[in-house]
Amino acid sequence: MTYCLAISVDAGLVMASDSRTNAGVDQVSVYTKMHTFGIPGRRQLIVLSAGNLATSQAVINQLRQDIANPHSPLNLDRAKCLSQAADYIGRISCRIQHKHNKMAPRSGFNSEVTFLLGGQIGAESPEIYLIYPQGNYIAASPYAPFLQIGESKYGKPILDRVVDPGISLEDAARCALVSLDSTMRSNISVAPPLDLIIYRKDSLLEGRCLRFELDTPYYAALKASWSEGLKKAFGELPKFDWETS
Amino acid sequence: MTYCLAISVDAGLVMASDSRTNAGVDQVSVYTKMHTFGIPGRRQLIVLSAGNLATSQAVINQLRQDIANPHSPLNLDRAKCLSQAADYIGRISCRIQHKHNKMAPRSGFNSEVTFLLGGQIGAESPEIYLIYPQGNYIAASPYAPFLQIGESKYGKPILDRVVDPGISLEDAARCALVSLDSTMRSNISVAPPLDLIIYRKDSLLEGRCLRFELDTPYYAALKASWSEGLKKAFGELPKFDWETS
Repeated sequence: MTYCLAISVDAGLVMASDSRTNAGVDQVSVYTKMHTFGIPGRRQLIVLSAGNLATSQAVINQLRQDIANPHSPLNLDRAKCLSQAADYIGRISCRIQHKHNKMAPRSGFNSEVTFLLGGQIGAESPEIYLIYPQGNYIAASPYAPFLQIGESKYGKPILDRVVDPGISLEDAARCALVSLDSTMRSNISVAPPLDLIIYRKDSLLEGRCLRFELDTPYYAALKASWSEGLKKAFGELPKFDWETS
Repeated sequence: MTYCLAISVDAGLVMASDSRTNAGVDQVSVYTKMHTFGIPGRRQLIVLSAGNLATSQAVINQLRQDIANPHSPLNLDRAKCLSQAADYIGRISCRIQHKHNKMAPRSGFNSEVTFLLGGQIGAESPEIYLIYPQGNYIAASPYAPFLQIGESKYGKPILDRVVDPGISLEDAARCALVSLDSTMRSNISVAPPLDLIIYRKDSLLEGRCLRFELDTPYYAALKASWSEGLKKAFGELPKFDWETS
C-alpha cells in the first residue's frame, strides 16, 4: 500500500508521501514515490504515485526520456498548463498499463497506478490534480483543497478539520505529517521515510524538500506533541451526568 | 453504509452504532442497527449489524422467533456461551443469504451482512465477537480490544490511540462517540441518531442505553470540546526551524 497527499492553499502547495512498497507481506521494500520535474524560475512539477511499481517506474522513466528527447511532441518542460501535463501523464500511464495487460491478459495482476500532480507553470496559478488509472483527472476544489491517493481514509479526518485555503504552508505541512502519522499507526503497509515538499506560490523553485525517518528530530517531536495533545483533548471531554453527580 | 463498533474493557463493554441505511444516494433512511436480547440477572446480549438491510432484519426476526418458540433447538436465551451464540447467528445469517441468493442467482445484488455480538452469559466473562457473512467469527484480543464493522477506517486512529483494557467504561464510551463523530465528518453515509450501550461487567442487566442526535446536549458538547481540543493540539505542534529563526 501507499499513502500520498497534496494540499493546495493560497500560499502554495504541500505534497507528501510515504515510501513503503509491497507485493505481499514477505516482499516489502523502500521506494520514494515522489518525483520532481521543472526548470528553476519557469516551472516546477511534482508527481506522486500509488499502485503498481513497475507501471509507476515506467511512467516516470518515460516522462524523463521525453524531456531528454528534443523531438518528443510533448513533455513536462513544454506543457502549457498543468491540466495538459495531467492529460499527458494519464495517456502515458494508460499506454503502459495496456502494454502490460496485453502481454498477460488473464493473469489477474493489476497494473493500475494513480498519480497526484502538483506544481506551477509560469504565470498560471499553482494547482493539484489526481490522475486516475483510466487517464482522466480531477483538480481539487477550494471547498476540499486536498487530494489523496492510496490508503486515504485513516488520515482524512484531520485534513477535513484543518485544511482550508487560508492556512499557512507550514500548517498545511504539519497537517500532512499528522495525516501520514495517523495512517502509519493504523496500517503497517504505509511506512517511513516520509517525503515532503513545501512549494511557495510564484517561487518557481523546487521549494523545501524534507525527508523524515521516525527518529528525525522534528518528526519525532511532532509525533510526541500530537499524541500528547490528543490525550489532553480526550481527557478534557465532558463527563456524563452520572460521573459528576 | 454503516459504522458500528464494540469495545471490551476490564470494566465491561461499550457497543455503538449509527442509524443511516441507504440503497443509493436517493434512498436514504433511518434504522437502528442495535438489537438487545437477554434475561435480566442471567444474560445480556447486544447485536449490531452492517450490510444488506433485508438480511439483517430477517436474521433479527429469526433470533426473536427462536426465543419465542419453546421447540427451537437453540436460541439466544439458551446458548451456553457467547461463542455458541455467535456460531448460531452466523448459521442463521448464511441460511438467509443463501435463500435470497438462490432466488436471484445472477442479479449481482449483495445479500451479505456482518454482525458484532457483545454480551455476557452467567458467570462467563463479557466478550465481543465479529461474525462474518460466511458465518465464521473472531473475538477481540487484549492487544486490540475493539471490533468494527462497516465504514471502519476513518474512526480507527482514535481507537488505536486510546482504547486499552484498563480505561473506564465512560472513557470507552467517549472514545466510541469520537470515533463515530470522525467517521460522520468524512462519510455522509454514516449518520445520527447514534445508539450507545454501556454494559457493566457482571451486572447482567441491559445497562445504560443512550441515543444521541446531533443536537443532544451531551453529544453537541462532546463534539465541540473535541473539535476545540484538536485545534489546540494542532496549534501546539512544534514549529519548523525556519519559522522560529
